[in-house]
Parts: sequence; structure tokens; C-alpha cells
Amino acid sequence: MSETHLKLAASQRDWIAVDWGTSSLRAWYVQNDGFVQTNARSTQGAGSLTSSEFERVLLDLVGPWLKVDNTPLPAVICGMAGSRQGWVEAPYVPLPASFSELAQNVVRAPMRDTRLAPVIVPGVCQNNAAGPDVIRGEETLLLGLLSEAGTQRRTFCLPGTHSKWVHTENHRMLHSRTFLTGELFALVSQKSILRHSLEGSGDMDLDAFRRGVTDIKTGSASFLGSLFSIRASHLLNGTDPHTAYAYLSGLIIGTELKELQESGQLKPGDVVDIIANSALTRGYSSALTVFGATACVHDGDMAALKGLSKIRKDLTDDLVSN
Amino acid sequence: MSETHLKLAASQRDWIAVDWGTSSLRAWYVQNDGFVQTNARSTQGAGSLTSSEFERVLLDLVGPWLKVDNTPLPAVICGMAGSRQGWVEAPYVPLPASFSELAQNVVRAPMRDTRLAPVIVPGVCQNNAAGPDVIRGEETLLLGLLSEAGTQRRTFCLPGTHSKWVHTENHRMLHSRTFLTGELFALVSQKSILRHSLEGSGDMDLDAFRRGVTDIKTGSASFLGSLFSIRASHLLNGTDPHTAYAYLSGLIIGTELKELQESGQLKPGDVVDIIANSALTRGYSSALTVFGATACVHDGDMAALKGLSKIRKDLTDDLVSN
Repeated sequence: MSETHLKLAASQRDWIAVDWGTSSLRAWYVQNDGFVQTNARSTQGAGSLTSSEFERVLLDLVGPWLKVDNTPLPAVICGMAGSRQGWVEAPYVPLPASFSELAQNVVRAPMRDTRLAPVIVPGVCQNNAAGPDVIRGEETLLLGLLSEAGTQRRTFCLPGTHSKWVHTENHRMLHSRTFLTGELFALVSQKSILRHSLEGSGDMDLDAFRRGVTDIKTGSASFLGSLFSIRASHLLNGTDPHTAYAYLSGLIIGTELKELQESGQLKPGDVVDIIANSALTRGYSSALTVFGATACVHDGDMAALKGLSKIRKDLTDDLVSN
Repeated sequence: MSETHLKLAASQRDWIAVDWGTSSLRAWYVQNDGFVQTNARSTQGAGSLTSSEFERVLLDLVGPWLKVDNTPLPAVICGMAGSRQGWVEAPYVPLPASFSELAQNVVRAPMRDTRLAPVIVPGVCQNNAAGPDVIRGEETLLLGLLSEAGTQRRTFCLPGTHSKWVHTENHRMLHSRTFLTGELFALVSQKSILRHSLEGSGDMDLDAFRRGVTDIKTGSASFLGSLFSIRASHLLNGTDPHTAYAYLSGLIIGTELKELQESGQLKPGDVVDIIANSALTRGYSSALTVFGATACVHDGDMAALKGLSKIRKDLTDDLVSN
């Protein structure tokens, strides 16, 4: 389903939805009847911009959608644009937090151009006994996926460079935990001694991936103590680098799930909502079944758009139109 | 104790001991009475050399010790010089292996210069149910530390870029396991998002280090799921980067020990022989006490020299002098 056929909540005016992450920027033009008219994307992520550059970059992308008008067009932005190093800081809302606090704590972004009135959604932080953690962008995707009822307890997994796990219940985010899984996989596969024994192109060898997950689950492999066995196996047995790559991915994602299992945050029978756009979805779904859990997969862009729409609906008109 | 005051076994002739690792080269001139006369080191490790360059690099270092003589001076070399990408391959001896197999399987290195007759000590490999593993250089250090009796079971830990654990008994190496600990610590602390929250200069904060080890042991932290908390803690609480650096080191070394504990290879009351030259010795010793074990620390250079001397003693004269 393409977002251009998605029907969001109607509002009094057309508006622009923006998901501005570290490495990419995505925008949608939403008509007042709730239909998405068009969308655009750019690689000018927040990570490579200084505060003063955000306005120009956004106008480069959405300028063609703007008309000279008496009232500026509202825009709602989630993601790293609201970090301290971003456009303007939208301070973290502390967990546990109600999803309604997101709209209540948006921050207006400074614009010279009067055709646009952007606000930025805050991230959330956790600074209690559950351990320090921060989230920026994912809170909006979660909101997008919550049904209007949204009362039952749910476990969300947002895989990526940093894999985020968040538990929600009664329209609230309870706690979160971030795993360095994706970043560590990239470092080990591209920068460590193992890089000589790995080849990541082409389709993932799902059997080898599941063997990695299973070896971690059963304890016949462990994280730090099994990485080098991939190198040794290549030296001694000429193990195929595609197989080794998938096995390594299984070891790392398996370790993430094992740690969740050991801390009681993942149990057999659990249903986990995965939000992602990437090929990671398949791996995580498969790994979850090894741990006796079931994955329910959701599209990340769609979740962002829906979440931004819910926040737009809750914003008072003076915040988005003056 | 300096090696120049070390008395090794006497032999018929003077000889040269060489420890040639990936990133460094160390040589000692040993007199026939067993006393070490002098030593030298260079940063021309085996990792940066092609096969044809080894002779020149070795002669640059030990040339001043050589005289024109009728019989070439024996040299015994351990380490990566014997790898497939080294000077000449000294094929792995499979584990379990008797230490006497090391001398039996040395390989002569090709020399154009007739003043020197070098042999290279083989590495050992494990390719059985204990999991694939390889060792090159550490086998000689272990031999150096074994007493003449050497019958009781011992656990050796050789920390470093790749941390090696080897069990020995009755003059035999039983099995080995390599942890990517040092390499992973370097990647995470220098290349990951955590690098912005860490500062490694100056003395290690040993309290923070032990807290990292303890958090892993008790399960209140886990490897993949706690790395990001260092970043979050910096963002939310301004945690001191020196403290964070030591805590990260504790998390990683603690994970190594926890994995050994879980596989039954480390138990409270164990005595672990640590062989190292680096500052790592202090951290590993401290971490072992958290796990109820005791460390016995040995100097790495001394162990290499003693191990090479034992191999020299076992070599038949025709191998080292023709």
C-alpha cells in the first residue's frame, strides 16, 4: 500500500509531515481531507547539518508544494532535527510518558520564510532504575501504530543501527532499551579481523542465520567467545564467506534476543511488533521464532506518517498556524 | 627482572631467540652458557611484511650480532612469521597437543645469508567439538611458563587484541578459546557512537571498571543492551568520559569472564595464569576477583624467551646448524 493512497485524519488545512532522521529526510504533503497528495525524500539527514542549514534544506525539498498565502502551512517534524545538535532542541519527555505528551511538548522551529510553520516532536528519555536511554523519532512511529483503543500491553522492536525495544500500555510508553546491534554488526563485519572471512552481497543465507541465533539461544555459542571462531573456521575449513556473514548476523541478533530473554523482557508466546523498512525485518522475524515468539511486521514510513498525523490532530491551531 | 640477567638452558652454541608478532618484532642474543647478552626490538611486525622482506628485516635487527663464521647461528622464531601470509608457513599442530610437538614441527625459514639458520615454531589449531580456534605465538609463551613438572591442570589467559584462554595438563595443551575482547573494545571506543562519551587518557578509574564487571556478573547489565546506556547517561547526566571509558572496559572484560563462567571454564576458586606485558594485566586481575577467581601474573616477554629456549634445547642439531 502506497502512502499516497493512505487516508489520514481530516484537518482544517493542508499540512506537511516530515520524518528527519540522522541520515535521511522524508516529507509528505497531506491534504485537508486526509489524503496524501505527494511525497519527497532527500539524503540530507540531520546528522550532517548545522542548525542554520535546516530551513534551506527543508525548503529545497518542499518548496514546490508551497504557495504564497496569508497563513503559513503547518509542518510537523519528528526525529533528530529536534536533537541538541539539530535544528532546535525539543527537550526529551521522560518515561513513563503518555503519548499525548508528545503533541503537548512540540517546539516551534524558527523560520524566516513565512510560508511554512514547522513544529518539532520531542524525543523521550529514560533516566530511572530501568537504565538510561533516549529515543528520538521512534516515539512517533509507535504512536502511529497504536490503535485508538491501544490499551493492551505491547512490545515494539525497531531494528536498525540502534535497535530500540519499547513496551507500551494504556496509551503510554513504559520503558525502552537500546541495543547497539546494527552498529556493532557493521563494525565487526567491516573493520575487524573477521572482515577477511565475510561476504555480505546477495541474498542472506537464512539457514546459517538461524544456526547463529540457535547457537546463542542454546548456549553452544556466546558472543565475544564465538566471533573469532568464524575467522578460525575460515582458516581451517574454508567456510564460505556468505555463510559466515549470515551466521555472524545470527550470532549478534541472537545475542540481542537472548539478553532480552534473560532480563524477562522476551518470553515464548510473546507477540512482538516490528517496525522497519529494511531487510532486517526478515532476520528479526526469523530470530524471534527461534525464541518461541511471533513477529508482527509494520512499515516504518507508514508508521511515521500516521504518528505525525495523530500529533497534527492534537496540536492547537495557534501552534501550527502562527 | 631484566631478561639480560635471565639464565636459560646452556647449549652448544650461541643462538638468537625471536618473537615475531603481527605488529612487533623482538629478538634476544643468548650465549651458549644460557645468559642473555643483549636484545633488540622493532615495530616491523609480520602483519606489514611480504614473504620476501622477512630476511632483510631480521638482518637489520640482529645483523650487528652476527660474525662471519663457518657455521650459521641458530635462530628460533615464534609468532605470526609462521603464518600463511608470513615468512614461511609453519602448519598448525592440532589440539590436543603435547608441547614436545612444537619442537618436532618447526619449519626452516629460507635464508640467502649463510650467517643465520632460522627455524619457525608452528602454531596450534583446534578443529573439533570444542570449536574452531587458532593460536600462533602464545603456544611458545605457555611452554615457557610450564614448570618441568607441569602435570597439574592449569588455566592460562593471554589478554590482548584477541584474548586467548588455554587449558593445559600433563605437558599438553587441551583446548583453547579466543575472545575478540580487545579488538571489540577498540572498535566500540574509537569508531562507534560511544566515542563521543569516552576519554581513555590517564589512569584507569578502577572503581568504574569493577562496577562494569560486577553489573555484567550480576546480570544488571548485559553486553549489547548496555553499551548505549553509556551514551544515554552522558547525554542525560553528563557522565564523566573517563568513568565511562573504564565502565565500558569493565562491561567488555566482564562479558568475557561471564561467558567463560557460563560454559563452565571459569569457577570461583580457580587460579588463572595471566601472561601479558600490558596495562590489561591489572584490569583482568581485578575482574577475576569479581568472579571469585585469583590471578597469577607473568611477564609476556620473559615467557616467550623461556619458551623459545625450551624449543631450542629440544631441536636436533642438524635442524638449527645446517
